[in-house]
Amino acid sequence: MRRIIYSTMIVILLAAIVAACGGGDEEEPTPTSPPAAVSAEGGAAAVGDPGGLPAAAMQIAQERGLTPDDIRAAMMTYTPSGKWDEYLSFMSGGHSGNLIVVGVPSMRILKNIAVFTPESWQGYGYGSDESKAILDGGNVDGKEIRMGDTHHPALSETAGDYDGQFIFLNDKSNGRVAVIDLRDFETKQIVKDPNLISNHGATFVTPDTDYIIQTSQYATPFGWDYAPLSEYKEKYRGLMTLWKFDRETGRIDPAQSFSIELPPYWQDLCDAGKLASDGWVFCNSFNTEMATGGIEEGQPPFEAGVSQRDMDYMHIVDWRKAAEVYGAGDTEEINGMPVIRMDTAVAEGILYLAPEPKSPHGNDVTPDGKYIVVAGKLDPHVTVYSFAKMQQAIADKAWEADEFGIPVLNFDNVMVAQLEVGLGPLHTQFDDRGFAYTSLFLDSMVVKWSLGGDDPNGYQVADKVPVQYNIGHITMAEGDTVSPDGKYLIALNKWAVDRFTPVGPLLPQNEQLVDVSGDKMQVIYDMPLGIGEPHYAQTIKADKIQAWNAYPEVGWDPATQAPSEHAVKVGEERIERNGNTVEVFMTAVRSHFNPEHVAVKQGDHVIWHITNIESAHDATHGFQLGGLNLSLSIEPGESTTFEFDATEAGTYPYYCTEFCSALHLEMTGYMLVEP
Amino acid sequence: MRRIIYSTMIVILLAAIVAACGGGDEEEPTPTSPPAAVSAEGGAAAVGDPGGLPAAAMQIAQERGLTPDDIRAAMMTYTPSGKWDEYLSFMSGGHSGNLIVVGVPSMRILKNIAVFTPESWQGYGYGSDESKAILDGGNVDGKEIRMGDTHHPALSETAGDYDGQFIFLNDKSNGRVAVIDLRDFETKQIVKDPNLISNHGATFVTPDTDYIIQTSQYATPFGWDYAPLSEYKEKYRGLMTLWKFDRETGRIDPAQSFSIELPPYWQDLCDAGKLASDGWVFCNSFNTEMATGGIEEGQPPFEAGVSQRDMDYMHIVDWRKAAEVYGAGDTEEINGMPVIRMDTAVAEGILYLAPEPKSPHGNDVTPDGKYIVVAGKLDPHVTVYSFAKMQQAIADKAWEADEFGIPVLNFDNVMVAQLEVGLGPLHTQFDDRGFAYTSLFLDSMVVKWSLGGDDPNGYQVADKVPVQYNIGHITMAEGDTVSPDGKYLIALNKWAVDRFTPVGPLLPQNEQLVDVSGDKMQVIYDMPLGIGEPHYAQTIKADKIQAWNAYPEVGWDPATQAPSEHAVKVGEERIERNGNTVEVFMTAVRSHFNPEHVAVKQGDHVIWHITNIESAHDATHGFQLGGLNLSLSIEPGESTTFEFDATEAGTYPYYCTEFCSALHLEMTGYMLVEP
Repeated sequence: MRRIIYSTMIVILLAAIVAACGGGDEEEPTPTSPPAAVSAEGGAAAVGDPGGLPAAAMQIAQERGLTPDDIRAAMMTYTPSGKWDEYLSFMSGGHSGNLIVVGVPSMRILKNIAVFTPESWQGYGYGSDESKAILDGGNVDGKEIRMGDTHHPALSETAGDYDGQFIFLNDKSNGRVAVIDLRDFETKQIVKDPNLISNHGATFVTPDTDYIIQTSQYATPFGWDYAPLSEYKEKYRGLMTLWKFDRETGRIDPAQSFSIELPPYWQDLCDAGKLASDGWVFCNSFNTEMATGGIEEGQPPFEAGVSQRDMDYMHIVDWRKAAEVYGAGDTEEINGMPVIRMDTAVAEGILYLAPEPKSPHGNDVTPDGKYIVVAGKLDPHVTVYSFAKMQQAIADKAWEADEFGIPVLNFDNVMVAQLEVGLGPLHTQFDDRGFAYTSLFLDSMVVKWSLGGDDPNGYQVADKVPVQYNIGHITMAEGDTVSPDGKYLIALNKWAVDRFTPVGPLLPQNEQLVDVSGDKMQVIYDMPLGIGEPHYAQTIKADKIQAWNAYPEVGWDPATQAPSEHAVKVGEERIERNGNTVEVFMTAVRSHFNPEHVAVKQGDHVIWHITNIESAHDATHGFQLGGLNLSLSIEPGESTTFEFDATEAGTYPYYCTEFCSALHLEMTGYMLVEP
Repeated sequence: MRRIIYSTMIVILLAAIVAACGGGDEEEPTPTSPPAAVSAEGGAAAVGDPGGLPAAAMQIAQERGLTPDDIRAAMMTYTPSGKWDEYLSFMSGGHSGNLIVVGVPSMRILKNIAVFTPESWQGYGYGSDESKAILDGGNVDGKEIRMGDTHHPALSETAGDYDGQFIFLNDKSNGRVAVIDLRDFETKQIVKDPNLISNHGATFVTPDTDYIIQTSQYATPFGWDYAPLSEYKEKYRGLMTLWKFDRETGRIDPAQSFSIELPPYWQDLCDAGKLASDGWVFCNSFNTEMATGGIEEGQPPFEAGVSQRDMDYMHIVDWRKAAEVYGAGDTEEINGMPVIRMDTAVAEGILYLAPEPKSPHGNDVTPDGKYIVVAGKLDPHVTVYSFAKMQQAIADKAWEADEFGIPVLNFDNVMVAQLEVGLGPLHTQFDDRGFAYTSLFLDSMVVKWSLGGDDPNGYQVADKVPVQYNIGHITMAEGDTVSPDGKYLIALNKWAVDRFTPVGPLLPQNEQLVDVSGDKMQVIYDMPLGIGEPHYAQTIKADKIQAWNAYPEVGWDPATQAPSEHAVKVGEERIERNGNTVEVFMTAVRSHFNPEHVAVKQGDHVIWHITNIESAHDATHGFQLGGLNLSLSIEPGESTTFEFDATEAGTYPYYCTEFCSALHLEMTGYMLVEP
């Protein structure tokens, strides 16, 4: 007996020591090795290392070949029922046209907010007058555009910190910007820029969300009018538009918005200055060659023509001065939008350029606002600029003009340091300990490096971690604000290849959560994303957002965030006929609609109001009616309206599409269209 | 020194004993208690119990308040980078109109397959001729219906087991059925039933996928023609349609499909017989009262009127005999669909009824095919029927006719057992150890009970586990086949309420993974689902599916799963004009399109072919062109076509929307529309 206990104690002691040494240390193979290696390592490691886990758990870890690093990662990410995620990451959906809300660290998708693309589950753009009006705000040349290519979400800020009130998002392929209200996580507004048709460089906010900034990408003539490519330099132009945001109404005010004319360089990502650099905005560009492609005609293709020069131009814009010039009326109205012409921008000291290597992408201001980090896709360095040096160079007029007469500051006068970080540096974020993190597309790695201030030698590579695969942007916990949190980094990888169970030729992306709390980074979760392709994301402390559980009062119109004029009260349900127009006033409550019969005549125009009279958390009702291409989601308290012409005689059931109660299948009715 | 080691040993020994006792045992509070309790228990438990975890992991578990059950659950679900999920669960998206693919046990969304609703990321229904043709197959009265309400996916079966080749899905709100090919996880066909406009009871397959079965829900006249509700009993009818599936073409063959006329009871869920009951299909119904509602006129609302009778009717259908009768031409063509009239069905012995309590929902055949389990939402029992007894009752003609002349078998003659399981029994699945599992909507629990064969006393409740909240259907690993795997159960909960970080009034659903491998069930993962509302799901062993990494050859048309007649070969890129029609033959490869310039004249009709000439795994290219409402996803090898009228003169950039390479932003071109 004693011998048994004693030997047991020895085994446990040894196991515990091995575990303590191996657990979460960085000599262990990371769980990001290929499958085979993981199994092998895991199988081997799992026998000895996880000793001391609760008995059942230890057996499972062994059976599933989990390594000590896997176990540590599981402890960091597993989120039990009813426990809330600490952060919310808002990921652009790319060509899904939507905005995806992900809980961190569990990496679970909490919602896919419909923005530019109709979405049937949310009842967005599927019949309701309210959502149609929002989407119509983004029509192009009067044509209904019902998709988008979303790239860069921007949370509203107060004093350079996320305030959790609104989030903005761009549509690259049609040059539009959307406003989403974080009280109900719904899109409220889409605005279309009348002069540009692509806006990859969007959205970015000024430190107090006075303006939402966008730049054009692929240059066109103003209003994308026709002009042959032979007239590219003369007629094609870039633009920066400053959309005025009205926090009171929660809407962009186009009447207070304006643009700045830019050269037909392809403007790319921007970041607004903050603190030391407040009042300025910095944007990359990557076709200063003004190449126009034409592989089919034996010309160099864009991919080559656009990449000839060693240096492109950072655009340095004094947006406060631009706002003054706009306020003074020194603009030209083009297609209804006031535009500060290039010569005015130069004369007023609004616009400067600085050389930047080579085909840059990320352009990121440090938390203190003193430095701007540029990552050039085709240059293995990150280049760090000093805002103070820029101001000095401007004061000294240390510049030459480009061929459009725009001052180009001397590179050596404004650059502080160039640090070789690896192949394909793309985008940079910051932590709370003086480190910057840059994605390396070609190396498929994240590199962590120290910020050195004005000391070039202070910039040093501190760590690298491989990611799977082809990383684009990164997002860190409040990582582009004046007060980053550190802790978590998410690698927005473009290719997944072998990471997940095969689901056909179209693969999900792989969003990898990286623990950056220690000296060494560790990938702790692989999140497949099979509903879009995030380009950029912002990650906010969840408790900063004050989301509603139900609308403030029964009869609410989410489109205006105010009581609806069409709200239907209990006891006032009815059907009114006025000539050939039939107006239905309906309520919905578990588990019936009132009325349950709606009789109209073929050819009638039907206006149908529904109010969900419930206020209970999660008591949403849906509504569909066969043959109408109609789908509504009516949250607690919401009132909505749809209308249609009853063109086909017949018998049409309608019903609640949300499983709201045990008698939800019985929550139905008939619309009868009499011939 | 010795004292230190010894006391260390004692501590570890005690910790290990506590852990071994506490770990994963069922006396511990499950992680499904309310947040406060979890923190409290977790905080307390975490100090002592998880002792012996790798040092870093133990500290994290303590900081995050994980209980021993949480740790065990994390070990069961955490899936390291590059490790594949063991099962794929195909979840209907409800009123999102799509089909969601989830990996099990990690509960990560791998893909959201666009079915009835266009989806921009997948380029489905956003301009390509191929996807438009598929969606147009589901048009209603010539009207484009671009949404759906999907409920019950059905994987193709061979000998009653999933074969991993196809999956079928219904649209309740328009009475349609879709076919999805699991080689590329894409929708290939949508068919519209010309006689019914709602089909909640769909889809279900016969054991070798000869037929895909659907039933109508809310009764209407044939073809949803107009008839007042006063003529409900005379003119309104239910229908069962048997869609013939052609495995060779991978398509439904409407020309070989037919329907069976049913009474205007609201037919609901079905299950096809298998093994012992092969050749038959069993369906519930829940408005045998033939109530027609009318709360606005002082009539009992549907929720009350439909729930008056203690018994509704199970529909027992001999589908093989029905197929013979159809083959013999003993049908009537109604709106182009051959229909076996009710009197013929009765005369030919195709259709029988059996009483079933009360407003039933789930209707599930045991793996051996000998018994049918009915769960009645308003009855606390599950009712088990014997197929052998049904056959005997039919042979004995032990029936009375209902008011439509359909034989109603004597309940006591066909029922084997009634087991009280709890409030709101809804749907049943099976494991590999002789147990059935039933969801309890009102109790918010899953109940596990033993199958007793012909012995009424063999049916006993074995275990219950609470779920959060309002559980609808459940899915188990191959849980409705002839050979269930057990292991995992997923509770498809309708309400999440407090489970997740708030994201506004519209909440995600909560799909909870339950470990059923032991005697006691344990909830091991909460998966928020914020992109739809699954009603039913089927869960298949992942390695049964042979998905393609890329299309079999370059120039492939996924719509026909054959080489495309419009495929463009390298070197054959060109633009051809024929009168006012311009035809573009384009290739896409990292990182350029060819051609990069497309010049047309205002008013031209443009036909545009693009072939992705890559064959590398994950080398997908996207395509968008401003102002056109166009979004394509062109997977490796795929060839696609879109066409439009160039109505507006202008300069339109097009570009690759998939981040395919470091020079992906440079993968662009200009379409110039000359006035």
